Amino acid sequence: MDRFLVVSSDGHAGPHAAEYRGYVNPEYRDVFDVALPIQIEMTEAAAKSFLVDDINKEWRKGRDYALSGAWDAEARDKVLDADGIAAEVLFPDGVTEMNAPPFGAGFTMTPEGVTADLQWAGCIAHNRWMAEFVSTAPERRIGLACIPVLWDIDRAVEGIRWAHTNGLRGVVFPPRWGSFAAYHHPRYDPVWEICQDLDMPIHFHSGPAPIEEYFGPVPAPEGHVVPPGAMGVYITEVAMWLVRPLTFMLWGGVFERFPKLKVALVEGTSIWVPEYLELLEQRYSESHYAQKLGDYRSHLSMSPADYFRRNVRVGASCMPRREAELRHAIGLGTIMWGSDYPHPEGSWPYTKDQMQGTFGGLPEHEIAQMLGGNAAEFYNLDIEKLAPLAARIGPEKRSFAKAD
Amino acid sequence: MDRFLVVSSDGHAGPHAAEYRGYVNPEYRDVFDVALPIQIEMTEAAAKSFLVDDINKEWRKGRDYALSGAWDAEARDKVLDADGIAAEVLFPDGVTEMNAPPFGAGFTMTPEGVTADLQWAGCIAHNRWMAEFVSTAPERRIGLACIPVLWDIDRAVEGIRWAHTNGLRGVVFPPRWGSFAAYHHPRYDPVWEICQDLDMPIHFHSGPAPIEEYFGPVPAPEGHVVPPGAMGVYITEVAMWLVRPLTFMLWGGVFERFPKLKVALVEGTSIWVPEYLELLEQRYSESHYAQKLGDYRSHLSMSPADYFRRNVRVGASCMPRREAELRHAIGLGTIMWGSDYPHPEGSWPYTKDQMQGTFGGLPEHEIAQMLGGNAAEFYNLDIEKLAPLAARIGPEKRSFAKAD
Repeated sequence: MDRFLVVSSDGHAGPHAAEYRGYVNPEYRDVFDVALPIQIEMTEAAAKSFLVDDINKEWRKGRDYALSGAWDAEARDKVLDADGIAAEVLFPDGVTEMNAPPFGAGFTMTPEGVTADLQWAGCIAHNRWMAEFVSTAPERRIGLACIPVLWDIDRAVEGIRWAHTNGLRGVVFPPRWGSFAAYHHPRYDPVWEICQDLDMPIHFHSGPAPIEEYFGPVPAPEGHVVPPGAMGVYITEVAMWLVRPLTFMLWGGVFERFPKLKVALVEGTSIWVPEYLELLEQRYSESHYAQKLGDYRSHLSMSPADYFRRNVRVGASCMPRREAELRHAIGLGTIMWGSDYPHPEGSWPYTKDQMQGTFGGLPEHEIAQMLGGNAAEFYNLDIEKLAPLAARIGPEKRSFAKAD
Repeated sequence: MDRFLVVSSDGHAGPHAAEYRGYVNPEYRDVFDVALPIQIEMTEAAAKSFLVDDINKEWRKGRDYALSGAWDAEARDKVLDADGIAAEVLFPDGVTEMNAPPFGAGFTMTPEGVTADLQWAGCIAHNRWMAEFVSTAPERRIGLACIPVLWDIDRAVEGIRWAHTNGLRGVVFPPRWGSFAAYHHPRYDPVWEICQDLDMPIHFHSGPAPIEEYFGPVPAPEGHVVPPGAMGVYITEVAMWLVRPLTFMLWGGVFERFPKLKVALVEGTSIWVPEYLELLEQRYSESHYAQKLGDYRSHLSMSPADYFRRNVRVGASCMPRREAELRHAIGLGTIMWGSDYPHPEGSWPYTKDQMQGTFGGLPEHEIAQMLGGNAAEFYNLDIEKLAPLAARIGPEKRSFAKAD
């Protein structure tokens, strides 16, 4: 084969906010109708505080059809074909395409300002839509279910089972737990167990962070001025909030008790991985600390860094060349490239160029692993089935022969 | 000179909790009397959850006099002499020597569960004691004032001025701000201004973290079981909480407006520095992000990493060899070695051996910088005055000729 099999570890999809209505259980539709205009207003405000309006308007120009791939299967496949992407992982979407799921569902799933029933109703609506969307091309679309796991463990287990039965191939959990127990707590064991048993990888997607610490109160009071550099702090810290759930799982012995459990951290870069592994190794092996601070490691048969290497993958969205250069320190088998379509910070519509810039000149088998091989293994993809598609649309290997 | 001038960037001192009474303003002494037994009980509980009781008891055996250096000037000087330390920076103390300042003063200064007046009363008491303690050997003791800067800016400015007038040479600020504005907010400008004008370096000391996320509710309810690995998470994350205030200051343009302001981050290791600087550089120079996310950098004339190199020093307590090996990536001028006496995780009573293990075989002038030169410059120490002391007690240079 003279083309690479490419799997994007980071794609976003969902119907326009209003279209979720039909997927919401009937008893929540009245609330939905009240909440929708508020949600749209808040999304518009978020878009304004997060994105430069005119630059984004310019960026969107002439791309209406391509961007409708956020919910339209045909439009999406054209984008994927042009990008050379054979299969992709599908998260919910939100700000830019006005297609966030209702009631605080999505990949943030903050447990504040919402009830368990409502957030579940929103997640169920999204998961139904996603199951339908995936069915338009099951081999290409690795759909994820939103599971607001903090509220009730039995309900979460049931939701994961539903997702598996309905063709979804992984789950998204909230990366921040508010006042709930963090992910080292044994209360989550039944959830880890079902995810391991059904081979449903768990995903945390970057984005969630204490926005009010950066930008000030939400909603902002009259006359509020955002402190200088707020966005700089946000983009400096955002990966850190993504890593936190994993730190709790690693030390909590989750991967000791559930050795086949899979976790992916997505769109938080992979640059932090080498230093993080060093820190884990150091903390685990430091007998000076361990002696004085008590036993925090005898429940682990390996160092947290070893569990990381075995059980964790990193979704490297819009991966810069520097991460490719650090691939051995990060872990060649850890990196799963991603495009982040349809987000403006993603690689689309320059995916092929960006790929070549990132990977050009590296050994072919290593590029193959990072662009698709690792993801194919992580998600048990049917490579045979994807091969003809990759042979038709994948980026040509020879175009990666040299560094840019 | 055949011995190094050693300055410890991390020492702790304070009178026994009960002894603070005489330093508290009279109107708070009734409250003090009520609060003291509660504080002692909580400190004992904290010691038990944080430290392995029998190991620490063993460690303390035969060291009562040396440990009384936590408040006794003569005992302290003997310890410093034996350790080869000519001068040291003095933070408040707490758990191990039962000498935390009252009313939530100390280096945490959490703004929760206390009033502004009470926390100030505690800080004032500590600052008075520290000013007295410093006066026993002003050239040796770099005393810091606790300033609970979150509450009221004018009061903070006044407190900093008092500290300067009374022989203290820097300030400690709370590393976590709770529901107050973070450190990129312009409300703190008068504080940065006075610290710059009086050349009072600002210190954040590691330790503070969301303990309840790790260990569960505080106080723990009957029958509470601490989730596995809680301490592992804490020691993995603790440096991250220390770095947060700086991230806000760097992006907020604090060092742009106050170019001579000095900040030290203490006992959070220095291992994270190279990756942190890379991240700051990347976020600052990334035009792709910058364009789409809005202007978060035009108020900065340099990258946040450049301010770091210019304005920030890192107190590298009980510095391991690996940090010494990374010294050029961290910044040779950034590292200030520290002993953390009288804490059990510190280098005392094996300071000289540990120093040799950390620095042995490195170029002499580089060791000199990290062990004392950088701190002497940062704190404007009178090197002439310290020279005879260093010549008598400092570690011999020839003992560092080879790696261990």
